[in-house]
Amino acid sequence: MASIGFIGVGNMGGPMAINLVKAGHQVKVFDLSAELVQQVVAQGAQRAATVQDAACDVDVLISMLPSGQIVEDLYIHQTGLLDHINPRTLVIDCSTIAPENAINLAQAAKVKDIVTLDAPVSGGVGGAKAGTLTFIVGGDKSAFEKAEPILRNMGKSVFHAGNHGAGQMAKICNNMLLAVHMIGTAEALQLGVDNGLDPQVLSQIMLQSSGRNWSLELYNPYPGVMPNVPASNNYDGGFQTNLMNKDLGLALEAALKSQSSTPMGYLAKSLYGLHGRKGFGKKDFSSIQKMFEKD
Amino acid sequence: MASIGFIGVGNMGGPMAINLVKAGHQVKVFDLSAELVQQVVAQGAQRAATVQDAACDVDVLISMLPSGQIVEDLYIHQTGLLDHINPRTLVIDCSTIAPENAINLAQAAKVKDIVTLDAPVSGGVGGAKAGTLTFIVGGDKSAFEKAEPILRNMGKSVFHAGNHGAGQMAKICNNMLLAVHMIGTAEALQLGVDNGLDPQVLSQIMLQSSGRNWSLELYNPYPGVMPNVPASNNYDGGFQTNLMNKDLGLALEAALKSQSSTPMGYLAKSLYGLHGRKGFGKKDFSSIQKMFEKD
Amino acid sequence: MASIGFIGVGNMGGPMAINLVKAGHQVKVFDLSAELVQQVVAQGAQRAATVQDAACDVDVLISMLPSGQIVEDLYIHQTGLLDHINPRTLVIDCSTIAPENAINLAQAAKVKDIVTLDAPVSGGVGGAKAGTLTFIVGGDKSAFEKAEPILRNMGKSVFHAGNHGAGQMAKICNNMLLAVHMIGTAEALQLGVDNGLDPQVLSQIMLQSSGRNWSLELYNPYPGVMPNVPASNNYDGGFQTNLMNKDLGLALEAALKSQSSTPMGYLAKSLYGLHGRKGFGKKDFSSIQKMFEKD
Amino acid sequence: MASIGFIGVGNMGGPMAINLVKAGHQVKVFDLSAELVQQVVAQGAQRAATVQDAACDVDVLISMLPSGQIVEDLYIHQTGLLDHINPRTLVIDCSTIAPENAINLAQAAKVKDIVTLDAPVSGGVGGAKAGTLTFIVGGDKSAFEKAEPILRNMGKSVFHAGNHGAGQMAKICNNMLLAVHMIGTAEALQLGVDNGLDPQVLSQIMLQSSGRNWSLELYNPYPGVMPNVPASNNYDGGFQTNLMNKDLGLALEAALKSQSSTPMGYLAKSLYGLHGRKGFGKKDFSSIQKMFEKD
Repeated sequence: MASIGFIGVGNMGGPMAINLVKAGHQVKVFDLSAELVQQVVAQGAQRAATVQDAACDVDVLISMLPSGQIVEDLYIHQTGLLDHINPRTLVIDCSTIAPENAINLAQAAKVKDIVTLDAPVSGGVGGAKAGTLTFIVGGDKSAFEKAEPILRNMGKSVFHAGNHGAGQMAKICNNMLLAVHMIGTAEALQLGVDNGLDPQVLSQIMLQSSGRNWSLELYNPYPGVMPNVPASNNYDGGFQTNLMNKDLGLALEAALKSQSSTPMGYLAKSLYGLHGRKGFGKKDFSSIQKMFEKD
Repeated sequence: MASIGFIGVGNMGGPMAINLVKAGHQVKVFDLSAELVQQVVAQGAQRAATVQDAACDVDVLISMLPSGQIVEDLYIHQTGLLDHINPRTLVIDCSTIAPENAINLAQAAKVKDIVTLDAPVSGGVGGAKAGTLTFIVGGDKSAFEKAEPILRNMGKSVFHAGNHGAGQMAKICNNMLLAVHMIGTAEALQLGVDNGLDPQVLSQIMLQSSGRNWSLELYNPYPGVMPNVPASNNYDGGFQTNLMNKDLGLALEAALKSQSSTPMGYLAKSLYGLHGRKGFGKKDFSSIQKMFEKD
Repeated sequence: MASIGFIGVGNMGGPMAINLVKAGHQVKVFDLSAELVQQVVAQGAQRAATVQDAACDVDVLISMLPSGQIVEDLYIHQTGLLDHINPRTLVIDCSTIAPENAINLAQAAKVKDIVTLDAPVSGGVGGAKAGTLTFIVGGDKSAFEKAEPILRNMGKSVFHAGNHGAGQMAKICNNMLLAVHMIGTAEALQLGVDNGLDPQVLSQIMLQSSGRNWSLELYNPYPGVMPNVPASNNYDGGFQTNLMNKDLGLALEAALKSQSSTPMGYLAKSLYGLHGRKGFGKKDFSSIQKMFEKD
Repeated sequence: MASIGFIGVGNMGGPMAINLVKAGHQVKVFDLSAELVQQVVAQGAQRAATVQDAACDVDVLISMLPSGQIVEDLYIHQTGLLDHINPRTLVIDCSTIAPENAINLAQAAKVKDIVTLDAPVSGGVGGAKAGTLTFIVGGDKSAFEKAEPILRNMGKSVFHAGNHGAGQMAKICNNMLLAVHMIGTAEALQLGVDNGLDPQVLSQIMLQSSGRNWSLELYNPYPGVMPNVPASNNYDGGFQTNLMNKDLGLALEAALKSQSSTPMGYLAKSLYGLHGRKGFGKKDFSSIQKMFEKD
């Protein structure tokens, strides 16, 4: 079993850290919110007094933070945590951030002989709790192999996407595609309903046909078609529109840098941008269905 | 076993008729092309000298034609085939046409006590040959139940979508969604490749994540990722861009009629429209990947 | 001076007919609403008891109707007014309808030796009242020349766009472009305001720069920038979103028929479609500005 | 008359500097290309041996550079030119860069008591040569008033858009709107032509109607409609697609930062992105017309 520091134990990080505890690891957690820390400590983790304490003398240091700026500030600039990390500690950053941020971290770490991985996740809060996340990892193959068994304690799939930043890049591509088929699914369901079809019947037909996709299969955006999804719970819970907008922003920035053209991805960003502005920022992203309804 | 008339034995209708022959039915076929008729006759069907002959004295009459205008001309206007059909014959039109055309046919038939079903298919030429098509059926439940065993000789899934026209409407919704996730998949793969990812690795990751969809799973548009798909065969074979444009045109017309707004669907039509204009009309629709490549 | 029959004296047709009266013509008017007829009669027109009466024994018959179906029903099908029109009467249809409808009318009229023109207008209710409309005319050159002086009594510009249907087609292209730059203007103004610019200053700058367009110049969609436009009057009056949606629908149908690809035009239709669904159907089309506001 | 340093005398900066010379100012120019410098020196400017030399002992220092990174490197980071500038010198940066870059420059300058303005231009190479540019200026009002007479030697309109960065922001909004109506104009013309209209006649009609915009009026993208525009010269000269893509990239980044939604602007970026990838990067931006042609 490993000794693990864990920084950032919010909606995602909290259940992830608890799964590490349950797997038998020795886990020290830090968060700016004492209350969040307490929830994990209650499951058997140790409280770290400071980020430096969380990072000190551990086999693996995991971070789960809300933005690339915060990640860079923590490790490189403001807090300069890299100065306090032992080179034998493997740093795994699970935040969803721009590939550049991940590469900046890797390069700054390398100067100090510290090895990092970018390992953003797919699967949401539900997957974090159930331990069924997908980890999409960028960095050296040998570090990936060292990290894999730890990550498997928190997820069911662990992929090596390529070099530093590749984990972030693959996640960005995935989430852009998710946004596209979620909106496409919402439009197709509304078009059918507007023309007299039953959304449940139409969903079943498309699931067995070439329209099939993850949104339709596991996350139907039309209220009442599927139990236990946000659409059947007033679009509460799930993956917030604000977070989808953040990920689509990362996709746009990546496309700008590589001069790629992604018309559907850009339109998805435009529509989720409108949706967020109209009061749906904290609702689940499948609430885009409401954009297409007739008031 | 049933006696069946079959009108229109092209790329789709030909293999469908042959599957009916193989299932033991007595099949009479008609097509304007003697050559196409001959290919089905060679498998055991009878040649009908005229459309009237094909429609005469059969339990079931199936048609598979390229447009709503042709369907209406055949049954109602020009040829007036409804005048030659016995009310005991069940008419199943498998063409992909506008819901209005299907409803017009049903209403004109009803005046003569003839029962019709609209039963467009999903699954392409491959599915037609393999007998694995999906039939999406509109019309009365009792007629649907009568048709179902016959349709199962040509397909693996048979759905009752609702009343007359509902089969067409559900297919239109499905194909619009297909166009959206095909383009979204192509964009995501290109964005990844432009940023250094391996399209095969990225495809595997997204297949296990929330980006998953039919295009990615069975019909990867990036050359070389998947064997035996058009993308790995110079985009030959498969489902032509021209046909996707036809189906997207039906979706637009339906949306105009119901005043539904489908931004992703409209953008998909715009992009496939551009693609068709630039010489890709007869290439498989997954060739949209080439739109996003850097020349 | 000419004797003129005028069918359809609503928001647009009413002031147009009054301008003909003021120019000294002898005008007989018909409308299903007696109240609307009365408003024109009060200005000196005669009341026609029936459409047949309005069409009987006049030099010119003008119609201004809400849809192509109604135009075809009036002249060709239901009412069959062409049977009651003297071949010496020039028929000028000012309705905005599909080019096909205009061509159908021209062909049905030609059989009876009657000459028609399609002459849709640009300029709105304000232009109709002020007599400053633009007429965009399709049909034979000689008929155009005969119509021109009459049309000049109602407008300041009269264009010959080409053969039958060309007037409609040119108007459709114009209004699609109008929708595109209206939305583009609203987006640019909101982007500026969101980034701290004054909408008035930004409008002045863009008016003197390459962003200049009719929407910015005469119809600024941002409240308070320009007096006497709908944006400064709670988006009341002006050109309704519903009517823009109708015209964009005609553009889409034309593009489908000619297999043209118009991505910006289709997106404009998608956005105006959403806008109409969200309760802005009867507001002026510049109210699209509200779509981009932060709630 | 003033003594002026001028850094960057390429396609735009060269003719601008020459116009300052012609107005009687004493102008010292610097560029990495000796050849470009020579062209301005030949008109009466002095050659500055280094950037420091160009910046030394002048009333006004003007820079015209290709990117925000280069501007920041010149003044703040790599070259640190601010250390060599006398506080009495007014710095006017005419480059088109992100508002953040302009604000960074202003703040770094303020620390050293140096006053800056961001003053990007609209009007292209033609406007630079003719001295008819539009300057869109951000910064303090008093500095703006000091700069205005100098800028009027190079342009016909000078606007004060607001504080530091506002000049850039207003230019970004303008160019996004320009992209939108250029593409909209190209689509409308193609739609008309595909339906039998003459592009010249259609252009005239729309110019007198509500479709009117700068692209249609001064820069018609359809070949042969207007002499002396890039469309009638194989799309050579003018404002390159690559530069439009750069400006649209700045618009996207600004929209991301302010969480504004600009669907038409994003689609314009997608289409210009595709266009640039397909070999039109160095053609004039009105060549987007070719995207809509039928091959």
